[in-house]
Amino acid sequence: MASTRPVDMVRVSSGVRTPARDRTAAEEPLAIRVGGEPFAVIMRTPGADRELAAGFLFADRLIRRSTDLRAIEHCADAAERENVVEVTLADPAAMSCARARRRELTSAASCGVCGRQSIDDLASDLSPLADAIVVPAATIARLPGRLRASQRAFDETGGLHAAGLLSLDGDLLDIAEDVGRHNAVDKVIGRALLHDRVPLSHAMLCVSGRTSFEIVQKAAVAGVPILAAVSAPSSLAVDLAERAGITLIGFIRGDSFNVYTGAQRIA
Amino acid sequence: MASTRPVDMVRVSSGVRTPARDRTAAEEPLAIRVGGEPFAVIMRTPGADRELAAGFLFADRLIRRSTDLRAIEHCADAAERENVVEVTLADPAAMSCARARRRELTSAASCGVCGRQSIDDLASDLSPLADAIVVPAATIARLPGRLRASQRAFDETGGLHAAGLLSLDGDLLDIAEDVGRHNAVDKVIGRALLHDRVPLSHAMLCVSGRTSFEIVQKAAVAGVPILAAVSAPSSLAVDLAERAGITLIGFIRGDSFNVYTGAQRIA
Repeated sequence: MASTRPVDMVRVSSGVRTPARDRTAAEEPLAIRVGGEPFAVIMRTPGADRELAAGFLFADRLIRRSTDLRAIEHCADAAERENVVEVTLADPAAMSCARARRRELTSAASCGVCGRQSIDDLASDLSPLADAIVVPAATIARLPGRLRASQRAFDETGGLHAAGLLSLDGDLLDIAEDVGRHNAVDKVIGRALLHDRVPLSHAMLCVSGRTSFEIVQKAAVAGVPILAAVSAPSSLAVDLAERAGITLIGFIRGDSFNVYTGAQRIA
Repeated sequence: MASTRPVDMVRVSSGVRTPARDRTAAEEPLAIRVGGEPFAVIMRTPGADRELAAGFLFADRLIRRSTDLRAIEHCADAAERENVVEVTLADPAAMSCARARRRELTSAASCGVCGRQSIDDLASDLSPLADAIVVPAATIARLPGRLRASQRAFDETGGLHAAGLLSLDGDLLDIAEDVGRHNAVDKVIGRALLHDRVPLSHAMLCVSGRTSFEIVQKAAVAGVPILAAVSAPSSLAVDLAERAGITLIGFIRGDSFNVYTGAQRIA
């Protein structure tokens, strides 16, 4: 399915109305089924659906490597097969474990939910990141331009987020666009997972827009040492990046940017 | 709790490093409990938590008016009481109905999920919007400026979304800021609900950033006839606005904007 859709609209400029045709970012629900059961429904831009599903389950810790997947494919018999991805786990028992853990998390969140606590839980479960990595400031400053130059659907619609994986030299390795920033991140990390390239210990992740807890969480699980964003981080994004040992960069504008955590990796 | 947090960082400009202090948008988890049971955990910017919870449950159709709520308050006995809102429904049976409907929706989404179908389901459940409303183009063009002028936390952090309710004359009635655009919308609609001002049949909703299916869904449930955004809508946002009879506006820049649906309400 196309990642953009044509739409008829009325352009109003200085009070004058003109009928016009525009393109919007495509948004459709994707149902992820695991072991024949509904697991999640995600509003996403069609494209890279298998990668999105893989990245989503990886961030959720239901899978940890590509061999945890027996199969991941569009549903064969669905009426809307393009909007359904069917996942078969290598170890079906992992599914009941995941469900139990989900229930546990939900009740832990009952009356005493605490960002700090979940950050600690998460951080204790992560592999240490390579500390010897050093990237020149000039390479960081170029990242948004590299990302932007490859955002084809954004050019058409002005309405899509992007996530890019880049080498430590700043070369673009992969990019995904989506109406959801978190989906774009899941797509590039999911693709890396399916190609056995996680942990991404020698890559940088660059996202359009802002960084939230969720974006840092996904980077941390994938072992990405440097996360750069065009715009601002949230307080919890900074806290988690600090705890996970990630270099978190924001507000890249021209040759300036802010390094919130892990500044030792910037030369 | 404050909606922004101080953070130490390193500013890099033309290769020169300067330690600096910045403010980030606060992000914390909010646990919503209904009838003593965990219902949802939302990552949000602290502030207007009761309103956020009310708006979230309203958009979810668990409640339809303020009298459906017996109580909605921060949890009295939680360790992190500021991050927990406890909801008591007037009719506890509504809770089990809601849970059953949730399960049903999840299985319906199993192998045959369809945006069109859920749009139809949603639209059939909505009250018709006032069609006689007409707003001058100049009033629409002023909306983002009105919103922006009241975004206090954005001024400090550059990293918060905003949602504003405005009169048909373009006067700002209410505003909320949050790291999540959907949360900002839930906060203003939730506050209107708690003050018995829904349906918002004579108000406009203006959001920073883009419009997705979810934002239009929340506007539709609240009966808002005009939804204006600074940036682009998604394809499903346009489809749902069309079906719900909402005037959907995007890309407001200077005295220009695009009207995707319901152009009859713009003079």
